[in-house]
Amino acid sequence: MTGPLEGIRILDLSWVLAGPFATMILGDLGAEVIKVERPETGDLARGNSPLVDGESFYFLSVNRGKKSLTLDLQTPEGKEVFLKLVKKVDVIVENFLPGTMDKLGLGYEVVKRENPAIIYASISGFGQTGPYAPYRALDIIVQAMGGMMSLTGEPDGQPLKPGAALGDITTGLFTATGILSALLERQKSGQGQMLDMSMLDCQVAILENAFARFFATGKVPHRTGDRHPLFTPFQAFETRDGYIAVAMVGGMRNQWALFCAIAGLLELIDDERYNTHELRSEHYQELEPVLKSVMKTKTTAEWLEELSAVGIPCAPVNTIDQVASHPQVLAREMIVEVPHPRLGKVKVINSPIKLSRTPAKVERTSPDLGQDTEPLLTELLNMSQDEIDKLRKSGVI
Amino acid sequence: MTGPLEGIRILDLSWVLAGPFATMILGDLGAEVIKVERPETGDLARGNSPLVDGESFYFLSVNRGKKSLTLDLQTPEGKEVFLKLVKKVDVIVENFLPGTMDKLGLGYEVVKRENPAIIYASISGFGQTGPYAPYRALDIIVQAMGGMMSLTGEPDGQPLKPGAALGDITTGLFTATGILSALLERQKSGQGQMLDMSMLDCQVAILENAFARFFATGKVPHRTGDRHPLFTPFQAFETRDGYIAVAMVGGMRNQWALFCAIAGLLELIDDERYNTHELRSEHYQELEPVLKSVMKTKTTAEWLEELSAVGIPCAPVNTIDQVASHPQVLAREMIVEVPHPRLGKVKVINSPIKLSRTPAKVERTSPDLGQDTEPLLTELLNMSQDEIDKLRKSGVI
Repeated sequence: MTGPLEGIRILDLSWVLAGPFATMILGDLGAEVIKVERPETGDLARGNSPLVDGESFYFLSVNRGKKSLTLDLQTPEGKEVFLKLVKKVDVIVENFLPGTMDKLGLGYEVVKRENPAIIYASISGFGQTGPYAPYRALDIIVQAMGGMMSLTGEPDGQPLKPGAALGDITTGLFTATGILSALLERQKSGQGQMLDMSMLDCQVAILENAFARFFATGKVPHRTGDRHPLFTPFQAFETRDGYIAVAMVGGMRNQWALFCAIAGLLELIDDERYNTHELRSEHYQELEPVLKSVMKTKTTAEWLEELSAVGIPCAPVNTIDQVASHPQVLAREMIVEVPHPRLGKVKVINSPIKLSRTPAKVERTSPDLGQDTEPLLTELLNMSQDEIDKLRKSGVI
Repeated sequence: MTGPLEGIRILDLSWVLAGPFATMILGDLGAEVIKVERPETGDLARGNSPLVDGESFYFLSVNRGKKSLTLDLQTPEGKEVFLKLVKKVDVIVENFLPGTMDKLGLGYEVVKRENPAIIYASISGFGQTGPYAPYRALDIIVQAMGGMMSLTGEPDGQPLKPGAALGDITTGLFTATGILSALLERQKSGQGQMLDMSMLDCQVAILENAFARFFATGKVPHRTGDRHPLFTPFQAFETRDGYIAVAMVGGMRNQWALFCAIAGLLELIDDERYNTHELRSEHYQELEPVLKSVMKTKTTAEWLEELSAVGIPCAPVNTIDQVASHPQVLAREMIVEVPHPRLGKVKVINSPIKLSRTPAKVERTSPDLGQDTEPLLTELLNMSQDEIDKLRKSGVI
């Protein structure tokens, strides 16, 4: 069994995170991802900490299973090789500053002439159009500009960054989706197209609910700390020995009464201030100290047992080491070990896309810089050893 | 021009968020999404606030452009209609508790017999397998259990929830990707398959970098507030009138010196404690008060101008109203107005997937409950008005 994208070949010029995360998803699903890297230095992320014996786990994590081909796109010979490779692939992904590929003479219009069926995905901070197009962006920049940070943090504290690089990660996800939709369309039309992905657009897209609230009410959504903007309790509580998340939602009528009974807060069951999620959210200031102090009286395990018994969704707030050894995470094989030429075996996170007939697979670590240059040039472009040696000597590969 | 998924038909049994977000993405790209809802009540999210004249903007935001067909899957007639519909569609999406569809006699094995080419996507909190499979989960539950909350918040504060329902949103994104990959594979094999998506798996997947750090060093990643775990400064600062995000990364050697020069902190340029990102992160405790106090001396606009001038990535921390009127967001047409039968026009967030030849489109609002039942039953199943009336009378539709 091979992945669903077996036979799809991607020329991946992208670096650091948003682009590599997109091609990682597609590679896990069976696509052949050829990372095109600058000779000698390669993807900047190869130097990102943490390093173990000089190997970047930052890089390794999102580039597992890919091939690496070095190519200097600044040289005429490099451009020539690139335009030949373009005819042999289905997809190109790049996340340089807008205009970079055009300046190199390798923009979509040029590439399309060589291969009209190509899907050409450009990822940038703000997109290829609009007044901000020329500016460089990084994860925190789009999380700040797009509104995510204004919604993350304590209500009276400063704006914070969520615990993952969502500016990059969600752009990678939307990009993978866009590429697959274009490949599917190509099956009918025989034609490729360009995909213009903006990290800022993707931030706005994942905040649809905050915008919906703003469009409906005109009120500006603000930070709610650990709480849900609409439901109460739907938050994390400190317990005697840690933290627990408790989540009640609308439509489940008895949950509040059951919770009060278990917590020994019988007097709150019929308290008119707390009858509904709306009321509890409205009167949260009075409710908060009561809830917080009662939740501290038992351990996380005790609360988990008692609340789960009556069907109230709850969970411990796990740290990363706890997640890494969690029975459900292990049962779902979300952590896999792959062989590494120098480190023995390394652990990486598996694909969450679980297909029954053509499963995703994570079997190899990240490539050494340029490790596949020669076999790829031979196999795809039918180059002779002489031609390859010449390119090597002149520093093109 | 129509979207790339024109001609793909999805029977969407999903509710609230993860499933509807997945089918929203696919619907924006041109797929025909038929929301199958329980007669009379429909998707629970139809009641989710904020409501405007009884219309849920929560629901509207993620169900724009879909059709609605009411069907009681508990009745023999409802099941019969469902199994007939199954032959007319490409994809099924459901996010009930694992086992629910099997109990209804409508699980994958049954559906597959009717239509071997079907892509059947099941979404659940923990997946269809493993010890936690039977448990219900909600967004905050998987964000707590999966580690995201342990990484979000002030270093010395309590774990917080990021400003979006990432448990649902990222699962929707991975699910859309998985469905498209299976559709693409089906073009070759002619066969469908099942997709078993877990919200917990998806949380783990988006935290790959935190796991990479843990696997590399054995150190448990912790909350860093607004800061990057590796780079300094890469964070938000309070200014004289708001907040600004400033982001320096490795590989850009002069940024620290330029920043110090602009901030009037010349004495720090050659301070050995602060020479590299690693050192600045290590000595952040001493550095923090200096940076925080200098950043408060100017307005956000002043800092933006001065830092941008030397190419240091920076951005204001925008609130949702500011994002909604941001020139780049408007230039990218990320906010669209669609007609609504009772509210006139409503604003929704556009698809961030910008394709050149077959663009995504958001043109219609969400469907009224069951509004498309009769035309769909006529068109797809060739049902007579008599048959439809009978189903209506018995409450099946």
